[in-house]
Amino acid sequence: MISNNRNEPGHWEVLESSYLHKEPWLTMRKDAVRLPNGRTIDNFYVWEYPPWLNVIAVTENGEIVLIRQYRHGIGKVSYELPAGVHDKPGESILEAAQRELLEETGYGAGTWKQWMALSANPALQNNITYTFLATGVCKVSQQQLDTTEEISVHPVSPEKLSELIDNGEILQALHAAPIIKYLCSLQQ
Amino acid sequence: MISNNRNEPGHWEVLESSYLHKEPWLTMRKDAVRLPNGRTIDNFYVWEYPPWLNVIAVTENGEIVLIRQYRHGIGKVSYELPAGVHDKPGESILEAAQRELLEETGYGAGTWKQWMALSANPALQNNITYTFLATGVCKVSQQQLDTTEEISVHPVSPEKLSELIDNGEILQALHAAPIIKYLCSLQQ
Repeated sequence: MISNNRNEPGHWEVLESSYLHKEPWLTMRKDAVRLPNGRTIDNFYVWEYPPWLNVIAVTENGEIVLIRQYRHGIGKVSYELPAGVHDKPGESILEAAQRELLEETGYGAGTWKQWMALSANPALQNNITYTFLATGVCKVSQQQLDTTEEISVHPVSPEKLSELIDNGEILQALHAAPIIKYLCSLQQ
Repeated sequence: MISNNRNEPGHWEVLESSYLHKEPWLTMRKDAVRLPNGRTIDNFYVWEYPPWLNVIAVTENGEIVLIRQYRHGIGKVSYELPAGVHDKPGESILEAAQRELLEETGYGAGTWKQWMALSANPALQNNITYTFLATGVCKVSQQQLDTTEEISVHPVSPEKLSELIDNGEILQALHAAPIIKYLCSLQQ
């Protein structure tokens, strides 16, 4: 720890907490909080989500399995890692990642390890996103998509992946961070 | 473009759009949409935000200026880049970044360039976050914090920054991605 205890920021005290929305895709909490300096905020909103996960899946010949998908927030189709949510009872986060890779791309098998843990927004949401690195994956089945999913599959070389990052074609920060870490590890 | 036009995912058509919340810190839109396969979703929520920004500020002796701040979403104090929002009329995104660095840390001057552009969540929110790389910064004033801000300032060496990333002490993906890109650039 580098932090100097004299000036370490304090935690907030929750005075009151209620849910504005509680739907499968939208759970929003409203907290009234007291700051260390005594000031209060009546309406601080927090989005509650289950853990999220994504996968850097590397094929036996060194290609990384990307997908393309329309994202309505920014209104664009872009390159992403296969990804999903850990919301099935009895399933581990690793199993959820393996299931999502299989469903979205048809790739599976290989050797898996945890690669990174990040937050999309530590101020406003409560969950962590876990990235797994799976090496030696291969095509084991067809895609199994939900009726709301339209996903194309694109295995790319590390050089192409590096170009996509440099050109801003992988906008999702939760994907860009572990990918840059992976590309950097290949140079060492 | 690697994408195969035959299977390029299509955009969604917006059938109806309304605002559930429109407050300074919470603008939430509810869209009814039609997918390319004809299926409809009645309630897809999008959070609208102004552009966000953050800064990798490197001092004349090569230290990177980090801050520590309590983040209520995850309920923890963690290391971050100085960061903020582009919401002042007449101010460019670069000027907003320079202002935020000065207010949060007291550091300024130096040579600035855009370093990365990312999205915290392309599915659910509409804004982009811009990272600037500022080199040769120095302490030019005291911090100027809002009454709701409690921020401590921590210039760290590249080696220490690398350790913080490896130990998961910089959780915010919008900060981790440009930091890893910066650390990787130092190795080349």
